[in-house]
Amino acid sequence: MHAFLVFQSDFGLCDGAVSAMKGVAYSVDPDLVISDITHEITPYNIFEASYRLFQTIPYWPSNTVFVSVVDPGVGTSRESVVARTSGGQYIVTPNNGTLTHAAAFVGIDQLRLIEERTNRLKNSETSYTFYGRDVYAYTGARLASGIISFEEVGPLLQEPPLSLELFGASREGDSVRGQIDILDVRFGSLWTSIPFDMFQDLGISFGDYAEVRIYRGPSLVYINRITYGRSFADVMVGMPVLYMNSVGHMALAINQGSFARAYNIGTGAPWTITLSRI
Amino acid sequence: MHAFLVFQSDFGLCDGAVSAMKGVAYSVDPDLVISDITHEITPYNIFEASYRLFQTIPYWPSNTVFVSVVDPGVGTSRESVVARTSGGQYIVTPNNGTLTHAAAFVGIDQLRLIEERTNRLKNSETSYTFYGRDVYAYTGARLASGIISFEEVGPLLQEPPLSLELFGASREGDSVRGQIDILDVRFGSLWTSIPFDMFQDLGISFGDYAEVRIYRGPSLVYINRITYGRSFADVMVGMPVLYMNSVGHMALAINQGSFARAYNIGTGAPWTITLSRI
Amino acid sequence: MHAFLVFQSDFGLCDGAVSAMKGVAYSVDPDLVISDITHEITPYNIFEASYRLFQTIPYWPSNTVFVSVVDPGVGTSRESVVARTSGGQYIVTPNNGTLTHAAAFVGIDQLRLIEERTNRLKNSETSYTFYGRDVYAYTGARLASGIISFEEVGPLLQEPPLSLELFGASREGDSVRGQIDILDVRFGSLWTSIPFDMFQDLGISFGDYAEVRIYRGPSLVYINRITYGRSFADVMVGMPVLYMNSVGHMALAINQGSFARAYNIGTGAPWTITLSRI
Repeated sequence: MHAFLVFQSDFGLCDGAVSAMKGVAYSVDPDLVISDITHEITPYNIFEASYRLFQTIPYWPSNTVFVSVVDPGVGTSRESVVARTSGGQYIVTPNNGTLTHAAAFVGIDQLRLIEERTNRLKNSETSYTFYGRDVYAYTGARLASGIISFEEVGPLLQEPPLSLELFGASREGDSVRGQIDILDVRFGSLWTSIPFDMFQDLGISFGDYAEVRIYRGPSLVYINRITYGRSFADVMVGMPVLYMNSVGHMALAINQGSFARAYNIGTGAPWTITLSRI
Repeated sequence: MHAFLVFQSDFGLCDGAVSAMKGVAYSVDPDLVISDITHEITPYNIFEASYRLFQTIPYWPSNTVFVSVVDPGVGTSRESVVARTSGGQYIVTPNNGTLTHAAAFVGIDQLRLIEERTNRLKNSETSYTFYGRDVYAYTGARLASGIISFEEVGPLLQEPPLSLELFGASREGDSVRGQIDILDVRFGSLWTSIPFDMFQDLGISFGDYAEVRIYRGPSLVYINRITYGRSFADVMVGMPVLYMNSVGHMALAINQGSFARAYNIGTGAPWTITLSRI
Repeated sequence: MHAFLVFQSDFGLCDGAVSAMKGVAYSVDPDLVISDITHEITPYNIFEASYRLFQTIPYWPSNTVFVSVVDPGVGTSRESVVARTSGGQYIVTPNNGTLTHAAAFVGIDQLRLIEERTNRLKNSETSYTFYGRDVYAYTGARLASGIISFEEVGPLLQEPPLSLELFGASREGDSVRGQIDILDVRFGSLWTSIPFDMFQDLGISFGDYAEVRIYRGPSLVYINRITYGRSFADVMVGMPVLYMNSVGHMALAINQGSFARAYNIGTGAPWTITLSRI
């Protein structure tokens, strides 16, 4: 049975950093199967790292070990941890909020501190800037290959992982309200925090219009009636559409256009959205 | 013997979409060898997807399964198919023109409709936007691993795959005429639809000049006498060169520069080119 | 035991070029484990290719075969070679300076010319522009898989590999002087040619200030007193920091900012830097 080791980082793919991590991992165990989520996480953006894990890990086999290195506090006293999800997967990461979505939507049943005296690439003790290579890739590879057990990672932590605040979503009369969590970057679609089930309770059918309002802080920056469809192609090219995205949340797109660019919409705390029955 | 599954899409590598497809595939069969052509196809650009398959598949082993997801009609009634090439490779794709070059230059000997009732990731029936993950990656992995035979994909289609119109190339006296099909993006070179053999019949030798004219619709936008060389380095840095590219067509480059940027040349229908003996 | 074949190029990942190389390699031996350093080397930038090899190869197992294709002279009479490092790894590359850092910092114990009559993809004799696919990927795969021995690559070369001039670093009183070699692109950090040991001899402790001067040619373009820290996070967000990078050289960063962009600093010959004890 193959052991899967899957990397994510904000390192980009322009230099040798990601490959150095993979070399460390293959040196631990040449039989590992190594893959990537993405290395294009916006630098230092922990929320995005957390979200991309949530978007991806349900589709990987049990026992897969994920290594996520978005680590603005590298070299400080922030903890390095391994989380075990309720699905029996592992996430090796700094305990800096990267586990937010996994804790909220996947479930984390144990969290262990990485004991760095035993779980660190040999001769890397004076290196403070590349934990991804020296600690995370090394520990992830040893865990995936079975060289160390989950218990040998280090002591159990009693606290839940550090989590960022999630906006969530709420029903208000004939409306649901949520946040614009993130973009489907390539296509400029807005992915909201509103779960499909909560929207469905409004009783809007495929082909009907919903009223969409987008706010930046207190300011209304977009209002329109938009078709609720199965996918982009349910509307004409250039038209906006409201649909359920691939992680089961409500999303907004322009068919073959970019909603985010068309209306200068951003993501995160100040950006809220309401979907209303007309 | 390993089974190869090779992905292509317009998803980019910024988020978890590609990795979710790979997770689905490895969950089907952990022994698959998974690789990528590119995920940087210009969004919705079916011609480019078709061309990149043509550029790549001749170099992969027989039995390789390619999964290409450039799918502007996702969620509509466009067909999902698997093509078998005359070289015994398979291409899993929407039947939207992605098979154009494979049909014209590689040869497709059978085309089957994907029967989605049996070839769909479990519990994905309400998902309309991510066929790449729920149908194509899943079916490609099951086909590559031998879990299903080609026949079990679904019914044979009698029609050839949907094809985009190809401009081709033609001889006119001492000239050959073709289209600028695509760029060698990174180096700004123009790749034309003119086959090497047709050019060779003009009787131009290495080191000779050819007269090159580029048109945008009816307008002549570039005219020059350019050295015909073996490669970029047959001319001085900064000089243009006409050469045979890696897929056996005629191409134009500027040594260590970008021909496309230098003269604002684009690709596709309006962009034609003639190469003439002087 | 798996055989590792690791690619690097300036091809980018927008088209099928990299995948064609991998297809050739898997066709030679389907059991190879194939990975990448990067394909985003700045086009034609041999120094960068050399540096990325140096940054990466120490972390890969012995016997790993690297194929590096940054080849502005493709199709000319520049030699194609395979180097064996003192660590028992192999590098397949044009002999154009790509081996500079490997020769200086890793050690190359043998260099062989690729005998192209025997080490070339079948039926590729008329192709002059894609040595990466037709010669380097093919030869690298055959060497990694053991189909050919190192000796069968071709004749031993007596000369050392062609090397670019390296600026190095020097001690001058209470200062050390070096060059800005390269950027940590994603984070905008400056990586210098000054080894940690040489800096350490100045007697500056963690938390102390050092005086940093950056010159473009003869012009002083930056001067400041900067904290010497273990990593970015030893200073406040937005503050500059001097630290030892992941390859053991001195580097400059702005915590969560970009030093290179903030002060328009470049790399290579004209960019020198001094670090001084105050």
